[in-house]
Amino acid sequence: MIIRPPRHWFLRLFAWHGSVLPSIMFRLSLNLLMSLAAILSLPWYETLGVKLTLAPFSLLGVSIAIFLGFRNSVAYSRYTEARQLWGGLLIACRTLQSQVMAVCPGEAQRVTTLLLAFCYSLKHQLRHSDPRPDIERLLGDDAEDILSRRAPTNMVQLRMSQWLAERRRSGELSDIVYTHMDTTLLQLSQVVGGCERIVSMPIPFAYGLLLHRTVYLFCSLLPFALVVDLHYMTLLVSGFISYSFLSLDTLAEELEMPFGYANNHLPMDAMCTNIEINLREMNNQTHLPDTPVPDRHYRLS
Amino acid sequence: MIIRPPRHWFLRLFAWHGSVLPSIMFRLSLNLLMSLAAILSLPWYETLGVKLTLAPFSLLGVSIAIFLGFRNSVAYSRYTEARQLWGGLLIACRTLQSQVMAVCPGEAQRVTTLLLAFCYSLKHQLRHSDPRPDIERLLGDDAEDILSRRAPTNMVQLRMSQWLAERRRSGELSDIVYTHMDTTLLQLSQVVGGCERIVSMPIPFAYGLLLHRTVYLFCSLLPFALVVDLHYMTLLVSGFISYSFLSLDTLAEELEMPFGYANNHLPMDAMCTNIEINLREMNNQTHLPDTPVPDRHYRLS
Amino acid sequence: MIIRPPRHWFLRLFAWHGSVLPSIMFRLSLNLLMSLAAILSLPWYETLGVKLTLAPFSLLGVSIAIFLGFRNSVAYSRYTEARQLWGGLLIACRTLQSQVMAVCPGEAQRVTTLLLAFCYSLKHQLRHSDPRPDIERLLGDDAEDILSRRAPTNMVQLRMSQWLAERRRSGELSDIVYTHMDTTLLQLSQVVGGCERIVSMPIPFAYGLLLHRTVYLFCSLLPFALVVDLHYMTLLVSGFISYSFLSLDTLAEELEMPFGYANNHLPMDAMCTNIEINLREMNNQTHLPDTPVPDRHYRLS
Amino acid sequence: MIIRPPRHWFLRLFAWHGSVLPSIMFRLSLNLLMSLAAILSLPWYETLGVKLTLAPFSLLGVSIAIFLGFRNSVAYSRYTEARQLWGGLLIACRTLQSQVMAVCPGEAQRVTTLLLAFCYSLKHQLRHSDPRPDIERLLGDDAEDILSRRAPTNMVQLRMSQWLAERRRSGELSDIVYTHMDTTLLQLSQVVGGCERIVSMPIPFAYGLLLHRTVYLFCSLLPFALVVDLHYMTLLVSGFISYSFLSLDTLAEELEMPFGYANNHLPMDAMCTNIEINLREMNNQTHLPDTPVPDRHYRLS
Amino acid sequence: MIIRPPRHWFLRLFAWHGSVLPSIMFRLSLNLLMSLAAILSLPWYETLGVKLTLAPFSLLGVSIAIFLGFRNSVAYSRYTEARQLWGGLLIACRTLQSQVMAVCPGEAQRVTTLLLAFCYSLKHQLRHSDPRPDIERLLGDDAEDILSRRAPTNMVQLRMSQWLAERRRSGELSDIVYTHMDTTLLQLSQVVGGCERIVSMPIPFAYGLLLHRTVYLFCSLLPFALVVDLHYMTLLVSGFISYSFLSLDTLAEELEMPFGYANNHLPMDAMCTNIEINLREMNNQTHLPDTPVPDRHYRLS
Repeated sequence: MIIRPPRHWFLRLFAWHGSVLPSIMFRLSLNLLMSLAAILSLPWYETLGVKLTLAPFSLLGVSIAIFLGFRNSVAYSRYTEARQLWGGLLIACRTLQSQVMAVCPGEAQRVTTLLLAFCYSLKHQLRHSDPRPDIERLLGDDAEDILSRRAPTNMVQLRMSQWLAERRRSGELSDIVYTHMDTTLLQLSQVVGGCERIVSMPIPFAYGLLLHRTVYLFCSLLPFALVVDLHYMTLLVSGFISYSFLSLDTLAEELEMPFGYANNHLPMDAMCTNIEINLREMNNQTHLPDTPVPDRHYRLS
Repeated sequence: MIIRPPRHWFLRLFAWHGSVLPSIMFRLSLNLLMSLAAILSLPWYETLGVKLTLAPFSLLGVSIAIFLGFRNSVAYSRYTEARQLWGGLLIACRTLQSQVMAVCPGEAQRVTTLLLAFCYSLKHQLRHSDPRPDIERLLGDDAEDILSRRAPTNMVQLRMSQWLAERRRSGELSDIVYTHMDTTLLQLSQVVGGCERIVSMPIPFAYGLLLHRTVYLFCSLLPFALVVDLHYMTLLVSGFISYSFLSLDTLAEELEMPFGYANNHLPMDAMCTNIEINLREMNNQTHLPDTPVPDRHYRLS
Repeated sequence: MIIRPPRHWFLRLFAWHGSVLPSIMFRLSLNLLMSLAAILSLPWYETLGVKLTLAPFSLLGVSIAIFLGFRNSVAYSRYTEARQLWGGLLIACRTLQSQVMAVCPGEAQRVTTLLLAFCYSLKHQLRHSDPRPDIERLLGDDAEDILSRRAPTNMVQLRMSQWLAERRRSGELSDIVYTHMDTTLLQLSQVVGGCERIVSMPIPFAYGLLLHRTVYLFCSLLPFALVVDLHYMTLLVSGFISYSFLSLDTLAEELEMPFGYANNHLPMDAMCTNIEINLREMNNQTHLPDTPVPDRHYRLS
Repeated sequence: MIIRPPRHWFLRLFAWHGSVLPSIMFRLSLNLLMSLAAILSLPWYETLGVKLTLAPFSLLGVSIAIFLGFRNSVAYSRYTEARQLWGGLLIACRTLQSQVMAVCPGEAQRVTTLLLAFCYSLKHQLRHSDPRPDIERLLGDDAEDILSRRAPTNMVQLRMSQWLAERRRSGELSDIVYTHMDTTLLQLSQVVGGCERIVSMPIPFAYGLLLHRTVYLFCSLLPFALVVDLHYMTLLVSGFISYSFLSLDTLAEELEMPFGYANNHLPMDAMCTNIEINLREMNNQTHLPDTPVPDRHYRLS
Repeated sequence: MIIRPPRHWFLRLFAWHGSVLPSIMFRLSLNLLMSLAAILSLPWYETLGVKLTLAPFSLLGVSIAIFLGFRNSVAYSRYTEARQLWGGLLIACRTLQSQVMAVCPGEAQRVTTLLLAFCYSLKHQLRHSDPRPDIERLLGDDAEDILSRRAPTNMVQLRMSQWLAERRRSGELSDIVYTHMDTTLLQLSQVVGGCERIVSMPIPFAYGLLLHRTVYLFCSLLPFALVVDLHYMTLLVSGFISYSFLSLDTLAEELEMPFGYANNHLPMDAMCTNIEINLREMNNQTHLPDTPVPDRHYRLS
């Protein structure tokens, strides 16, 4: 489940990992048109009274870079937290599985099924996709009741909690082991709560808008400030600066909501499969799903 | 409960999410007047001895950008912490609810009521609004005693603690299960303590003042430094720079106290409704409140 | 216990929250004198061989802004941690109080007294003020033994630990409930340990010195670099830049040690009163202290 | 196991810790060639219409420095987290070992073996190297079953969990001590989960690409912007700036994936040996492995 | 145990806290020589073809400031973590001591001795100094066995673990209280593990080297870029900039490894004495060590 992009510096220069370039291509072309317009209209500058010098753009550019840096670190920390939550999900699943195998081995299979239903349901909830096929595959007849609820993932969690309570009521588990395993269930609860929080709380919308507009306006005006000094070179320099600023703006937007299908989003399909392999292997099952492999663009879905 | 602003880059340029622009509109207009004044007074500059060049403003502007970056990250981290506390509230409520359903199912309804009273009371405490309608709806006769206290939320918490103690005293819960559930109660206690801390500790007032004044003065003087080089273009460039700096200053002020009714504040109404849906669904109740939906300005209250 | 400074942008421009301006007023005046000196000596510059241009000051100014940003975030994080520790103190006090009321209600009054003695003792320890009046008011005869120790707060903590041990020895508390409540005591221990750490570990002294000196020297030399271009305007621009840099330096110094009596320090008097109100109200006492209210300068002590 | 590089400032100037310089040497030479090309083609500039001035490069350079700073802090935090996880592994191993020695001393040797198998297996998993020699040395006949699995480390963990379950089933451990030790096992689980997360989630690939390209293009174009002012000095200044930017880019790339064999990667061989020494010494064994010593380039593998 | 440097701004300007200035004095003098060389060779510049202008140095200087800011925050966070670990050590010692006094008071003295041996041993381990005198003073005959081990601190920890296990085996402690106290022991284990991690993992060496070299080269070349504009003033301005950059570089180097004897390192002697005072006072001992007092340079060792 490991992504290994080319490590040689030269190959990396031309690596194609289509996430950002395609989505800014159109804006970049517009920018080049602006540069052309600036170059062509240069002779009439005096007459038009256009007097844009680089100095105020330098001040503005550095400020935007600072704010972009802030926004990227904020978006990245959301992405990281999402990844950590899913990492914690894997850990909690393995832990509960091995606890069940230790104290009531006969139930291991049942718990594996519930845990997998939990993971797949969470994935579909976060991606707003249809959980039916996965839930029916795993839970069979029981699926219908889960699927009819508003919060299916939470319902699967409740099933696990009830399964645990039955073990306690039947005397199979002492209160101590019961509370110990309930603490592991709490970790699952924290994962789903954390993911819901990330999904339902975007970065304050005004930040995104502010930077999006500022970056765009900055890149559009820049050629007119550069053209007096650089003339034809405006195309190169303005394109270069626009490329970095627009890319970072777009990348931050993408990382802000890490649960989608974009290139830099979390590979939740692969993660679910990975959890399935782990849990089934712990049960000594032999028909395991294939280990997910990135495609030739270094992508996992 | 999910806010989905327009994702296309072009729509985002003109999206209207009225939080910041209206509150800086007046200052922005003042700034444009300053620019006009600068342009009109340009011919008399020599006589007046006004000699403002861009270089010191460049130094000052970058410094202000750095300090604004610091202030925004501080304000944003308060906003994030507030959101995490409310996310933790949802998790703790679900956890306590499922624990009660596991060990004393007959009490599930009663605990739901107390948990909801806790959430609504906390919301009203943080917004300085009247908790009476919600508390009376939920607690009935018991409400009066709660409402007469100085710290109603803390009193609801105490009720839950006493309810738990009774279950232990009556032998329904062993000491182990009792302490386990008391730990979940502690999480509720940490949420209310954390929210109170955010409300009662603003960012040191001097930071806000300092930046507020510096940004305002900077934006007011900037036209006079730009006008010599840019002439008419001063309007555009000065307006642009002022827009970014004033917006960021205002946004930081808004995020600093995230429990109000402003656009970028926490949608605590929606969050409370969400918790109510979750808990009632766990109780298999069928008359659930409607899922909160953002209005056409992408706002939840 | 809530501070609400004026929210309107115009009122904030002239709000008087006397923390920083008074303490830099003298240095600011010196700086204006330097500006005057620079303006007056301008005609002799050539002769004196003084050749200060703005470019190296620009480089230096931005560097200082970056380092000031670092120092402020470090000082602010100490302030935040101090506030979180006191927030945690409130939470731990409420938790222990409600645990005692749940498992041995007859002792609630006694524990309230010990908890309050703990809080007041910690406050006095951190401020190096005399704990005698508060400790005697709360503990009566027992006070003398506490006050004669080198670490009175730690001794109050030990009393609570011994009180708990007696409950266990007398069979009132099972081992499970005992260890559960001892864990709450540990939180008190962590609060006092954390506060002691903040007090006894200043930010490495060399940081403060380095920035203090650099900022001062920078502000003193700046007029001589500005005067050639700006002439009379030097007064305005140099005063403006000095105001921001000196303020931030002074503010960082103040926040670094947040347990004093300065404007931006923690309002520990109000916090102690708040804890007292909370605990006494939980005991259903009716004679509660007044809720602390900020004075007209938005200050709580 | 301590690396002590030369502390004297002069020796540090010329210290050779070959990690970064060799890998950028080629690009640095290309850069010098670009500088030469710029110097030689200077007379034809006018004719060619090349008009690159330093001002836009200054804006771009500072922006790149800000983004490089962001990327380095992100890469460094991954490196730090990896190190903390391995530090936590040492702590968890010692803790479990001393718990076993306290409650079932006869099993100490067996647990040491399993813990070491766990550590070595994790090391090989992270480095994609062959675990067979180490696992066979430690586990003997049992090794084959472990090695045939897809997730050997997880399997060793399961063995420990089963060993613990057997102790409980045989009545050797009470439920309380069992859950206490299972909590220590959970820490091992968190270490392996955390390391897997770091390995399987690179920093979003687009960040690396973006900066890698931007830095490279910047360094390549810089000589043409410098040459008009600096002439021959272009070689020195451009080389200097390229050295810092390329180094930081390369270093970030290296730290991003800290589990390899590069100079700045984690010395996992030494760490495993260190854990082995610690655990065996706790067992009073006398034939301990040698303490790992850095080679003359201050490297541990 | 509190350091109170002079708070008045004027006294702080000339405070002597000799940590950084002495260690950069030599380099600073070299830098002044470079400035002199630049001033003297100015007339021959044209002939020599030296053409260094300030613009590229401005770009480089701001970049270095950003990277220095990054390095300082990294070094400072290591220093802070080290201090937090030692703060945690104090808390854990007090906690264990009061737990022992609560549940087996007769053993309090013995545990104090072991805890102090643990602290002193850790201090000596971190400073690579000889633990013999302290260990022999505290443990008497038992010292030899500890001192002959490779990891003495870990051995003292094991002794405490074994002491606790004996209490459990003898029936003095129930399993619940045993596991509760073992959790406190775990905190000691985390302190020693954390400190070892800081000592054995320097900041990637290449960072230090890179910045060290870049800062030095920058400061050496700067006079040649300043001299054309500033002439004699080069001495002042170059000295000023070099002072800030070299100081920050040196300070970061010092904080990176906070366990030595330098001025800004942790005062571990004072901390150990402080723990000894606390623990002995809890035992009602009257012959306590003196409270450590900083010397007149505000230093604690």
